[in-house]
Amino acid sequence: MTKPQKVPSQKQNFAKWYTSVVQLADLAEYGIVKGSIVFKPYGYALWKQVMNNLGKMIEELGVQDVYFPIFIPYGLLQKEKEHVEGFSPEVAVVTYAGGEELKEPLVVRPTSETIMYAHFKNWVRSYKDLPLQINQWCNVVRWEKRTFPFIRTSEFLWQEGHTAHATRKEAALMVKKALDMYDKFAREYAALYGVKGYKTIGEKFAGALYTTTIEILLRSRKALQLCTSHHLGQNFAKAFGIQYLDKDNKLKYVWQTSWGLSTRFLGAIIGHHGDDYGLVLPPRMAPIQVVIVPIVKEEALKEKIFKRAKIVEQMLKGNNIRVYLDDSDKTPGWKFNEWDIKGVPLRIEIGKKEVEESKLTVYMRVTREKHVLAYNNHVYKFIIEMLDEAHNLMYQRSRQFFKDHVTEVKNLKELEELLLTNDKPGFIKAFFKDDTKQAKWLQEKYRITPRVIPFDTYDEVGTDFVTGKEEGRITLFAKAY
Amino acid sequence: MTKPQKVPSQKQNFAKWYTSVVQLADLAEYGIVKGSIVFKPYGYALWKQVMNNLGKMIEELGVQDVYFPIFIPYGLLQKEKEHVEGFSPEVAVVTYAGGEELKEPLVVRPTSETIMYAHFKNWVRSYKDLPLQINQWCNVVRWEKRTFPFIRTSEFLWQEGHTAHATRKEAALMVKKALDMYDKFAREYAALYGVKGYKTIGEKFAGALYTTTIEILLRSRKALQLCTSHHLGQNFAKAFGIQYLDKDNKLKYVWQTSWGLSTRFLGAIIGHHGDDYGLVLPPRMAPIQVVIVPIVKEEALKEKIFKRAKIVEQMLKGNNIRVYLDDSDKTPGWKFNEWDIKGVPLRIEIGKKEVEESKLTVYMRVTREKHVLAYNNHVYKFIIEMLDEAHNLMYQRSRQFFKDHVTEVKNLKELEELLLTNDKPGFIKAFFKDDTKQAKWLQEKYRITPRVIPFDTYDEVGTDFVTGKEEGRITLFAKAY
Repeated sequence: MTKPQKVPSQKQNFAKWYTSVVQLADLAEYGIVKGSIVFKPYGYALWKQVMNNLGKMIEELGVQDVYFPIFIPYGLLQKEKEHVEGFSPEVAVVTYAGGEELKEPLVVRPTSETIMYAHFKNWVRSYKDLPLQINQWCNVVRWEKRTFPFIRTSEFLWQEGHTAHATRKEAALMVKKALDMYDKFAREYAALYGVKGYKTIGEKFAGALYTTTIEILLRSRKALQLCTSHHLGQNFAKAFGIQYLDKDNKLKYVWQTSWGLSTRFLGAIIGHHGDDYGLVLPPRMAPIQVVIVPIVKEEALKEKIFKRAKIVEQMLKGNNIRVYLDDSDKTPGWKFNEWDIKGVPLRIEIGKKEVEESKLTVYMRVTREKHVLAYNNHVYKFIIEMLDEAHNLMYQRSRQFFKDHVTEVKNLKELEELLLTNDKPGFIKAFFKDDTKQAKWLQEKYRITPRVIPFDTYDEVGTDFVTGKEEGRITLFAKAY
Repeated sequence: MTKPQKVPSQKQNFAKWYTSVVQLADLAEYGIVKGSIVFKPYGYALWKQVMNNLGKMIEELGVQDVYFPIFIPYGLLQKEKEHVEGFSPEVAVVTYAGGEELKEPLVVRPTSETIMYAHFKNWVRSYKDLPLQINQWCNVVRWEKRTFPFIRTSEFLWQEGHTAHATRKEAALMVKKALDMYDKFAREYAALYGVKGYKTIGEKFAGALYTTTIEILLRSRKALQLCTSHHLGQNFAKAFGIQYLDKDNKLKYVWQTSWGLSTRFLGAIIGHHGDDYGLVLPPRMAPIQVVIVPIVKEEALKEKIFKRAKIVEQMLKGNNIRVYLDDSDKTPGWKFNEWDIKGVPLRIEIGKKEVEESKLTVYMRVTREKHVLAYNNHVYKFIIEMLDEAHNLMYQRSRQFFKDHVTEVKNLKELEELLLTNDKPGFIKAFFKDDTKQAKWLQEKYRITPRVIPFDTYDEVGTDFVTGKEEGRITLFAKAY
């Protein structure tokens, strides 16, 4: 490499911008098998932040980690009718193993409901065994032809929570608790503002009573599903015979939930926060929160500058800040560009002026502005404050981006007018009677799908924007990934 | 359940003892697909201890975590001749995906050398890119017909480290560093004493120059491989074309290593430390280090006892001890039995005497002895000391068990005499010329295999115990898993 890498314009071609940034920032590269990607150290470090932080929140819900086999006998997948119909087209199937053709083909898990619930039957006997609350971090496979790193890959990493409860209401509460947890995680760690609500019938999980979701927009103004939390009702319980003896001495089927968040979440961080200079990582998720770049123009000052840089590095490390001192022999300009691409929230520059005037120049990635701090033993406190400030700015920006990209339409005419002037307006808000045929028609005609029926406007009822006849609820539509 | 579960005798039938303990302690249960197991919360918590603690040590070596795809095109696996021969009989193969027959079948990774090294080619250009040091925590599949939980399963979890270096010597140093790390981990976390050394040619990794290992004995006196660290030479580098431009401006092939530790390690902990009462978990690995059991015989004292129990719980928690207060309504005797089976290192009993005399009764799992401590604000310090003491005792016992189960033989006659009186003597120490045909013959005739050529006696040379002719090195043989 002889000159810094250049990030393409985000506005001109979002997909090109996105895939370039993924590679320039060294997050991932394409795998050999179609649909696969390789998580490089920087990309996997981001996923580790998800595992560690969300992992703690899952534990705090009283949910315990387990690990189930990756292979599901095909017959097991078939036990819940809607479920097998939903997943059959996407599964990868093992037909040979140990040098022999298998009698029953094995499906590589696309999700683990069936393999887990075949065991739940033995784990649940009495009301005392409820609630049963487990979670699994693993890889899953859903065959894809078009790869879009993190957002659309044949194999992805995720966590899947699975719970069983005595009553429908308790299960509903769990569905809500899981979604609230994701919302908190998205807000407080990833600085992402999303819309919580229900999925329409056509978009719900195969086998669920209903699905809840958090939807956000990427900078392309296409929607992305951050996570889902499903009320499974008693569908699987009946298919797998998961019953418990209640206090009243009657055998009853359990009520179940499942909920998951995958490496798609990294796609949300990249595609929602990023800009024309590369990634913009939320400070609490960034593998490197602060990078220190020494700027040596006169050789005589080198020792002094490096000494100061090392002291600052140690001070920040000692205060649990993830810091990296870039003492490589690249030019400062090169380093600035590189760390911009990698989206490191704060960059501390230490050069002649900083050493002589006892200062630190701190650049904030999200605003691209420089600030000058007095250098002393307490400067780390200001760095911590600036990380929080960067987080808050990013979250505000995220919320504003949502507000700026919701347009209400009352009928198809208004929809058509909107799409005529703006190919990707973001979310389109409209009263919609949850009708799967109509949704399909809208998708075919306008390439928009119903993303979410928001919780906070669930009680508002109005005239369906397609037919102008039936009543419907406020629904957000969008082009989506 | 109406009475406490009973652990079968370890001596009478080790396999039965082992599989019973795995299930009674709620570590795992058999999966639906042959060869598979389900890691239940307690078993997975033990693996999380491995991931967290060994993970930190791997990071300290300067190795970075990544994630590669699970599917390997069959053609890629074939690139290194010895490698494909070694793994072909064990692989699971995906032939259908996304509703279509695949043009090229995909192998579910049995190990990731080939899929990783196809990418290494692009990652290594110059000597500046070396050493390349990465690690992956993932699931792998090697088809098995006979399941033995953790020790022999078709799918297992592991970490696999992969490095590339400029010179053969640097790679050799890395092989050693990785093995030393495993040894330290085994000793300091799992209280396991193992023998470090080389694998024989017949037992080395398919495609490696040489393999190093740590071998231990389970209580069955059969050997188990704790981990391996391989010097791959330039075999894969040449097969995959991984070259770098050296300082002298010449293109050179890299030298590589790979090293792994799997969920077999849990089998070692279970089968090496356990006794007739169940698991005995090494304190630094135990998901629960201390269990508190309140003993209430008079209802009037209940509140006082529970209050004390909660204070002790909080005190220990505040000092980073993994503690669990068992306030369930089972009888103390039931609880004692249950926590014995689960191998919790220390059990604190709090009853009338303890509350009235301001004491704590502390039972140590490994010795099954009770100690009385004065109860005060500093009692946690003694608890920490007792955890360390339990660890040290377990490690000493582990070392002693090895010493007590090594028998030297000079020739086949001595071997036969030994096996006649003792079907499973543990390690058999003999001079052996590393000859794969002879090793096979020994395996067929006596069911023993060469486990390890120990480093610490590598320089001693003597007459081969099979032929009585050639020279050989000290080698440890055993029946093995």
